[in-house]
Amino acid sequence: MHFTIEPITPVPGLQARIDGKTKPPGSLGELERLALQIGMIQQSLTPRLEQPQMLVFAGDHGAALAGVSAYPQEVTWQMVMNFLAGGAAINVFARHNGLQLQVVDAGVAHDFGARSGLIDAKIAFGTRNYLVQPAMTREQRDQALGRGAAIVDRLADQGCRVIAFGEMGIGNTAAASLLTHQLTGAPLADCVGRGTGLDDAGLERKQRLLAQAASRASLPPTAGALDVLAEFGGFEIAMMSGAMLAAAAHRMVLLIDGFIVTSALLVAARHAPTIRDYCIFCHCSAEAGHRAQLRALDAEPLLDLGLRLGEGTGAALAWPLVRAAAAFLNEMASFAAAGVSEQR
Amino acid sequence: MHFTIEPITPVPGLQARIDGKTKPPGSLGELERLALQIGMIQQSLTPRLEQPQMLVFAGDHGAALAGVSAYPQEVTWQMVMNFLAGGAAINVFARHNGLQLQVVDAGVAHDFGARSGLIDAKIAFGTRNYLVQPAMTREQRDQALGRGAAIVDRLADQGCRVIAFGEMGIGNTAAASLLTHQLTGAPLADCVGRGTGLDDAGLERKQRLLAQAASRASLPPTAGALDVLAEFGGFEIAMMSGAMLAAAAHRMVLLIDGFIVTSALLVAARHAPTIRDYCIFCHCSAEAGHRAQLRALDAEPLLDLGLRLGEGTGAALAWPLVRAAAAFLNEMASFAAAGVSEQR
Repeated sequence: MHFTIEPITPVPGLQARIDGKTKPPGSLGELERLALQIGMIQQSLTPRLEQPQMLVFAGDHGAALAGVSAYPQEVTWQMVMNFLAGGAAINVFARHNGLQLQVVDAGVAHDFGARSGLIDAKIAFGTRNYLVQPAMTREQRDQALGRGAAIVDRLADQGCRVIAFGEMGIGNTAAASLLTHQLTGAPLADCVGRGTGLDDAGLERKQRLLAQAASRASLPPTAGALDVLAEFGGFEIAMMSGAMLAAAAHRMVLLIDGFIVTSALLVAARHAPTIRDYCIFCHCSAEAGHRAQLRALDAEPLLDLGLRLGEGTGAALAWPLVRAAAAFLNEMASFAAAGVSEQR
Repeated sequence: MHFTIEPITPVPGLQARIDGKTKPPGSLGELERLALQIGMIQQSLTPRLEQPQMLVFAGDHGAALAGVSAYPQEVTWQMVMNFLAGGAAINVFARHNGLQLQVVDAGVAHDFGARSGLIDAKIAFGTRNYLVQPAMTREQRDQALGRGAAIVDRLADQGCRVIAFGEMGIGNTAAASLLTHQLTGAPLADCVGRGTGLDDAGLERKQRLLAQAASRASLPPTAGALDVLAEFGGFEIAMMSGAMLAAAAHRMVLLIDGFIVTSALLVAARHAPTIRDYCIFCHCSAEAGHRAQLRALDAEPLLDLGLRLGEGTGAALAWPLVRAAAAFLNEMASFAAAGVSEQR
């Protein structure tokens, strides 16, 4: 896999265009920084956020059967069916906020057959159990990265300029914890949380199991991001990493959701650090470990609402703010055009 | 003025309905609290946020001529014209987020004539200068409160269930500072900020002038909220206070913007503390003084984006979150309906 991701560079006149709008300079705070970033991503004074697309990547985890989650593994495929029926939180938020939604089967342990709204990119019926062996082979990992990139390539051809990333997979906060520990160097305890709702005993068991997994793999701190990815999975995370790299190479805007999505970004950013320039960090998750990721990426998210659902819900909820940033740049009058007096 | 504002009370089955949605209990964080509040406001398991309306109240301030703002006073009417032409930030955000927008001339020092989108409720061509005398008479104050309430009464008749409050008025952060100081007891220095962009010298002058105004009025800490309002103005703030009281009496959802809007709420809440139950605090302004207000109201806003523009922009930007809260309650599948296994 090779991606050319150029760093974003200043656009002559862009800051002046932002400052010339009928508002005191800087008074739109974070939205002004977003407008600048989006303009730089598209190298345009009039950036367009066309065909925004939410992709929800789903996969199962062999380790889930060992009890790292409060929910049984079958919830992954049941929730995929819920997504396809339009009944999940991500459906509601994407619908109201004008995001197209597609679900990607990256490796769910269920045979869905052909279904409208579902992209079949299945690598296998769930990863292997990283408590006893690597979650995936290198071939599977590369396949997952490649299929993620191919999905984004097709969307780019269709004119999509924004991708929001979401995920579903019982056990995937555990995999994300291991990736975060290994890739940021933060202590494992700071990277493990309650996921979708473990109690104290469940959290203690999860921490113990993940320490055991880290010890089995015994990767050096210098291990390559793609090696870490193969070790702990999951398929949905690997496929997101590939999709993210392709999206940045296409100069798309990347909407980064919470803990699991950011673990995929950690992999991608280790591989190609310039990807960071294309990312908008949508929310701060209540899941322990997300803060360690945000610190490692030097990221300040837009929302902090105590969300810990996943699915891409934080990205879908932040999208209207991103759209608003581009809209003020494109649609607000300037002081000159509106005949409004400037600061004295 | 008398308003009956009932405290909101629990709705049987509402919390269970929230918990039964296909998501781990509590995983939507602040949005779950919003859904509960909105259900309680409407006393419904299926609340509807129909015909959301943004009202931007505009007025001028006699004290503005003394130099409490970085902008000349004519910017008030020029910006009203910009609102009517659709070119301001609030127009862009309201348009993209599905809020109807109307501008209310509460007391701008300009003759607009009849214009589409403008509600003429003008009390006078600006308040008097509170550095030398009360900003308005009691009669003017009561007129402003009454006209604000009447505007909301008409909207209620038309089926509007949500009002977002915004404002425009050169010099109105200064009036809001005086109201906040007097009504919360916070030191004046903590209530005075740079408004739309004063430099250090300008801020120092503003602080000096406002100390002079407070000293001239020399109100006791026990002064009634409506007396404080008459003393410092402005007409747009008084009209918002009346509109807010009427909106809560109609059991509408009130979207509270930043520093100036919250100063109007401080007046209304002193008059009728139960109004607080109907308020959603949309954002934390970068204007010094807003934090003192939020503390006094024990409020945690949804957004913290460093905004300091006013106009209602923070409320317009937060509206999609509020809409999302009602939408998940109304549209998400339950575990039972979707055939998804619950937590074990």
